[in-house]
Amino acid sequence: DGHDGSGQETRMTRLDSAIRRLTAQRDLLDWAAQNVGPAGLVLEIGLGNGRTYDHLRAKLPGREIHVFERSPAAHPDCYPPEGYLIVGDLFDTLPPFIERHGRGSAALIHIDIGSGDEEANRSLARRLSPLLEALLQPGGILLGDRAFDMPSCRDISAETKVPEGRYFVYRRAA
Amino acid sequence: DGHDGSGQETRMTRLDSAIRRLTAQRDLLDWAAQNVGPAGLVLEIGLGNGRTYDHLRAKLPGREIHVFERSPAAHPDCYPPEGYLIVGDLFDTLPPFIERHGRGSAALIHIDIGSGDEEANRSLARRLSPLLEALLQPGGILLGDRAFDMPSCRDISAETKVPEGRYFVYRRAA
Ligand SMILES: C[S@@+](CC[C@H](N)C(=O)[O-])C[C@H]1O[C@@H](n2cnc3c(N)ncnc32)[C@H](O)[C@@H]1O
Ligand code: NI
Ligand code: NI
Repeated sequence: DGHDGSGQETRMTRLDSAIRRLTAQRDLLDWAAQNVGPAGLVLEIGLGNGRTYDHLRAKLPGREIHVFERSPAAHPDCYPPEGYLIVGDLFDTLPPFIERHGRGSAALIHIDIGSGDEEANRSLARRLSPLLEALLQPGGILLGDRAFDMPSCRDISAETKVPEGRYFVYRRAA
Repeated sequence: DGHDGSGQETRMTRLDSAIRRLTAQRDLLDWAAQNVGPAGLVLEIGLGNGRTYDHLRAKLPGREIHVFERSPAAHPDCYPPEGYLIVGDLFDTLPPFIERHGRGSAALIHIDIGSGDEEANRSLARRLSPLLEALLQPGGILLGDRAFDMPSCRDISAETKVPEGRYFVYRRAA
């Protein structure tokens, strides 16, 4: 790490860092697909360009995956089927979703919503935590691009092989 | 390739494909940094978010790197120094650049300007080819995200280890 093969120590570039981030995402989604409980919804929070949604649906064929996004702008072939894209701000869309599907209805939540603004990210994570926690079933898994504050969940990041600090993994107590 | 370790054949997802593309870019830029001639300009055409520019400048310390971009919108820390960012459409900015620096002034050109529109991409490549060819010094290298039509150059993609069709590599005859 940090060596270029010429014996020179080199810094991590933005290209290196993008590759690391995407690889960590993939490793973690693959891990989750192997470890998710057999029943329960899968939630993709933040569609973005649809890359991780596309990966999840490929690795979890037959599972119901609901996707939340404020302003959909994904690759045309990365949209969920009719009825599975929930458009709007999370604070407007998550509460009625919980009403509809019930507390503890989700086996797996993947949430990747970070913007460049760290202060905004922290506040968003704090306000989202109780909603996400309510959705997780006992033993349910949450993968996030940041830390969440969910008292009934354990941080199990160390059980996955993803480099520390890249991603956060929680499991709700059974 | 295409196996997930469970014995199941799986399709390549958009996440897989993004990782492949960025990895090919990095491998190729690293290869070019080892193989570029000792003198001559380096041109980054299409700044984008600045990832490949950041990689190039890290691997080629001390080299002059000019960057061309129509609408700059990179990470704030991925901008070239004063005077090295040439803003505008390539068909407006490349001809005066050739006037100023001379034909055959470039040792390495990296061009990554593709959009989602394949027809537009092909036409762009066709029209850019003579300008890029004029800029390359004898033995100069061009890395492109698509094929270019430069009669004085050989396609040397096979000499690099990058998977076929991902990137195109040309060397101008000496
Ligand atoms: C795919 S991005 C480059 C990404 C970059 N290699 C990176 O790793 O971040 C392509 C860029 O080329 C620029 N571009 C496309 N056509 C152009 C033109 N005709 N003149 C100038 N810039 C152009 C776009 O504005 C865009 O920022
Ligand atoms: Ni090192
Ligand atoms: Ni295969």
